[in-house]
Amino acid sequence: MLVIKVGGSAGNNYDALCDDLAARGSAAGPVVLVHGGSDETNKLGEALGHPPRFVTSPSGYTSRYTDRRTLEFFMMAAGGVVNKSLVERLQARGINAVGVSGLDGRILAGKRKATIRIVEDGRQKMLRDDWTGTIESVNSGLLRTLLDAGYLPVVAPLACSERGEALNVDGDRAAAAIAAALGADTLLLLSNVPGLLRAFPDESSLITHIPRNDVESYLGFAEGRMKKKVLGAQEALAQGVGQVILGDARVAECVTRAVAGHGTVIR
Amino acid sequence: MLVIKVGGSAGNNYDALCDDLAARGSAAGPVVLVHGGSDETNKLGEALGHPPRFVTSPSGYTSRYTDRRTLEFFMMAAGGVVNKSLVERLQARGINAVGVSGLDGRILAGKRKATIRIVEDGRQKMLRDDWTGTIESVNSGLLRTLLDAGYLPVVAPLACSERGEALNVDGDRAAAAIAAALGADTLLLLSNVPGLLRAFPDESSLITHIPRNDVESYLGFAEGRMKKKVLGAQEALAQGVGQVILGDARVAECVTRAVAGHGTVIR
Repeated sequence: MLVIKVGGSAGNNYDALCDDLAARGSAAGPVVLVHGGSDETNKLGEALGHPPRFVTSPSGYTSRYTDRRTLEFFMMAAGGVVNKSLVERLQARGINAVGVSGLDGRILAGKRKATIRIVEDGRQKMLRDDWTGTIESVNSGLLRTLLDAGYLPVVAPLACSERGEALNVDGDRAAAAIAAALGADTLLLLSNVPGLLRAFPDESSLITHIPRNDVESYLGFAEGRMKKKVLGAQEALAQGVGQVILGDARVAECVTRAVAGHGTVIR
Repeated sequence: MLVIKVGGSAGNNYDALCDDLAARGSAAGPVVLVHGGSDETNKLGEALGHPPRFVTSPSGYTSRYTDRRTLEFFMMAAGGVVNKSLVERLQARGINAVGVSGLDGRILAGKRKATIRIVEDGRQKMLRDDWTGTIESVNSGLLRTLLDAGYLPVVAPLACSERGEALNVDGDRAAAAIAAALGADTLLLLSNVPGLLRAFPDESSLITHIPRNDVESYLGFAEGRMKKKVLGAQEALAQGVGQVILGDARVAECVTRAVAGHGTVIR
């Protein structure tokens, strides 16, 4: 079982990714594809007069402040056009993909953080009406049902709160949770960099290997979104995933290359 | 088996619909919910500087001209926010809904009409780059898999062409095709009118009953979008659906009322 997360940033080559999945074929084993939607959400917000707002937690993690309107943009972007255009690309290549989100069938059961603590101008503040959450558990039943029936699930990072609310969750950590729940051998976190860089953005400073027990000491190299990837990797490994590879989604055969060890291999 | 299509126009009460589905419970039998997305697609197009364009076929049917950009708006609206916010409403009421589109798993296999013939200013024209289609067949397998596993499928009216392209298809006819493929007893087409009106928009002129063999002679009463509903009803009945009821989606207990015969009953 292979779980792949592909980022939504500029440069990631969805066509190449889907070409590679088609070339690998079903003989390469079952695949679940998790995607993002941040960039499309940002574009929608900008165009619709409600630009994105990013906030920093006291522990230094950056995330999107998701008010209800932004959650709707996220449903349009991640749940809508990103998900369906990935499914379309896969269908066009003969792969019977099914697009869902973690809200559907409560695949991703989350806990809402309606009020979040942020740091702004050096001071802590509380923000209300937030529709983000953390993933508490994965209902792998629906994913297994789809996989057993021969479909390739394409999952948008929405989760479902205990009260049935839709939540924006981090795609990398969603992929990590899914990989763990499905007992995946390998989790690929593909984005528009070659992996974890020792001196970001110098791509020649790629860290090629991280021992699974030493992830913590590499967290300091992770800039911006890469932090959540390293965190996701740590979570996946702790829950039994065999290996996590941070790979490049800009290149041809990105899945095959990452599986072959190109990128940052954590195991 | 009950298949319900709910329109996306102003006035349709999604909360009341979901309340009613929750109150009826699973004892009322399996349900598939099909929805639209036209209004949200129009709003997005207007806001993003690419307003909708409606065209009339030589036979008098009005439909949306869907260029690629409009298809993406449709993915955001129908495939995204409308689908996921319906799933959210159902999840919040304890119904384990799964949102998909007809593109997913090729539930709706369609034929693309890349070039369409329209009438404008009294003259026939050809329009290219259209991403609409007609439904050729329904792969009911995925829907049955979801229903058998206890989920309520919520279906956005996208279809998949033979070449794997995403297509914008009519929601009423999508619901009709799904009802036929699943051998539904009843198809409800709910919208913001009480049913087919003899003198639109006079709601007191409701036609309460149409004999199944006489639908053709009532087509003349159908204005605008109602034409496709009557056409969908005709298609569903011809393929073995027991009855089609055109009902009101603005009121409380809209499903229960329609099933009880409030609206235009065609059987």
